[in-house]
Amino acid sequence: MNVLIVFAHPEPKSLNGSLKDFMVQRLEKSGHNVQVSDLYAMQWKATLDADDNTEKQEGIRFDPAEDSKQAFYNGTQSADIAHEQEKLRWADAVILQFPLWWFSMPAILKGWIERVYAYGFAYGVGEHSDKHWGDRYGEGNLAGKRAMLVVTTGGWESHYSERGINGPINDILFPIQHGILFYPGFDVLPPYVIYRTSRVDETVFAKARDELGARLNSLWSTKPIPFRHQNKGDYEIPALTLRADFAPGKSGLAIHEYDA
Amino acid sequence: MNVLIVFAHPEPKSLNGSLKDFMVQRLEKSGHNVQVSDLYAMQWKATLDADDNTEKQEGIRFDPAEDSKQAFYNGTQSADIAHEQEKLRWADAVILQFPLWWFSMPAILKGWIERVYAYGFAYGVGEHSDKHWGDRYGEGNLAGKRAMLVVTTGGWESHYSERGINGPINDILFPIQHGILFYPGFDVLPPYVIYRTSRVDETVFAKARDELGARLNSLWSTKPIPFRHQNKGDYEIPALTLRADFAPGKSGLAIHEYDA
Repeated sequence: MNVLIVFAHPEPKSLNGSLKDFMVQRLEKSGHNVQVSDLYAMQWKATLDADDNTEKQEGIRFDPAEDSKQAFYNGTQSADIAHEQEKLRWADAVILQFPLWWFSMPAILKGWIERVYAYGFAYGVGEHSDKHWGDRYGEGNLAGKRAMLVVTTGGWESHYSERGINGPINDILFPIQHGILFYPGFDVLPPYVIYRTSRVDETVFAKARDELGARLNSLWSTKPIPFRHQNKGDYEIPALTLRADFAPGKSGLAIHEYDA
Repeated sequence: MNVLIVFAHPEPKSLNGSLKDFMVQRLEKSGHNVQVSDLYAMQWKATLDADDNTEKQEGIRFDPAEDSKQAFYNGTQSADIAHEQEKLRWADAVILQFPLWWFSMPAILKGWIERVYAYGFAYGVGEHSDKHWGDRYGEGNLAGKRAMLVVTTGGWESHYSERGINGPINDILFPIQHGILFYPGFDVLPPYVIYRTSRVDETVFAKARDELGARLNSLWSTKPIPFRHQNKGDYEIPALTLRADFAPGKSGLAIHEYDA
């Protein structure tokens, strides 16, 4: 199988760097093909702007979605964007690996999403009618592929627990796991999170390596997070609210899973 | 009063650009002093890296938090970072204005947070003991100031409602409002959100301008989101879980408000 690791940490000799090296080794040893987009090493351009279209029209009001659409369909996307889309097409599984900075992904990775996720590629896909609100949330060009987050954070596991002050980790990651990965079609595996990074010594690192190795071994068999599909009848269209007979009376993020 | 608007949209002639111009006008007309950090116009460097310290030490393993701390206390932060921190010190209220891209802020704004929010300035502040887990979540260097999000999104209001497929807007914005604004001490006002931006014609824009104008008029009197303070007894320390007698039996993001 083909695995793409999108890696967003500035220091190769960091915990994140070591984990990334371990993942590459382990996956290759298991016979998989691996590509790494090491965003800092690539000096990835983080900021989406009019230069992302090589046929930038001077003096025209820049509309990010419209411009992305034109560039995608006319083949005038900047080369770095098209190249990353090729990697996504090639991949059977994608791992986004990053330190949790201010409760989200680092800006350089957010900018990778914004620029690579073109209109026509990751959104604006499929029929848009009163019965089918685009191919998204379970459908889309990345359907059939798997995705997983590998995240480190300085905070303790309890700080991200059900009643922890930072918010439950699954809620904090919902905009990424549901909004960025499930949206264009990925099956999203539960994240692998390492907490309290300042206390990671050799013993803790060995344990993390074992756990992460097990997650990589089961990359093709782990049950994805059971997010509800948008267009299979669970949601009213076009309101896109969960039908009253599903998870009746409940609200919040967890209702968007089938077993809510 | 002094108001800082941090603006993150690439096109001045956009809906966001018009709203920003309106806010500046309205605030100045009301006698306030306004500064705008127009991140795209400033060509803000989005990516946090070792160059953010002017005394970058070659060959040393780069630790983002440690390096930020050294640069902050030694006065060796890059000039753009120090300048934005000065604006934050000057401001009585801060407005972050941006289009919601992939359920979060644009990368350029995320990179503003990551770089300007230095160790010693926005985190790593105050006593760290078994009774007081740093000056954060209600305390910190930005305490006494107000903050508000002004956000646009293509999705409909129902898509972001309590049972909407994108998740409730307050949950989607929690990592920003609670994790980025309340954390270093801001009082966070309810966000002003414009939905379904593709349908904003002159009538809708006039209505938005009226609503937003009213929000600006009440910037000093609007009741902040009642997020719980970390160090006033609601949380077990150091676990930082909400005490069992508050919002008993409940979990999720809303329990971190006093009226949960």
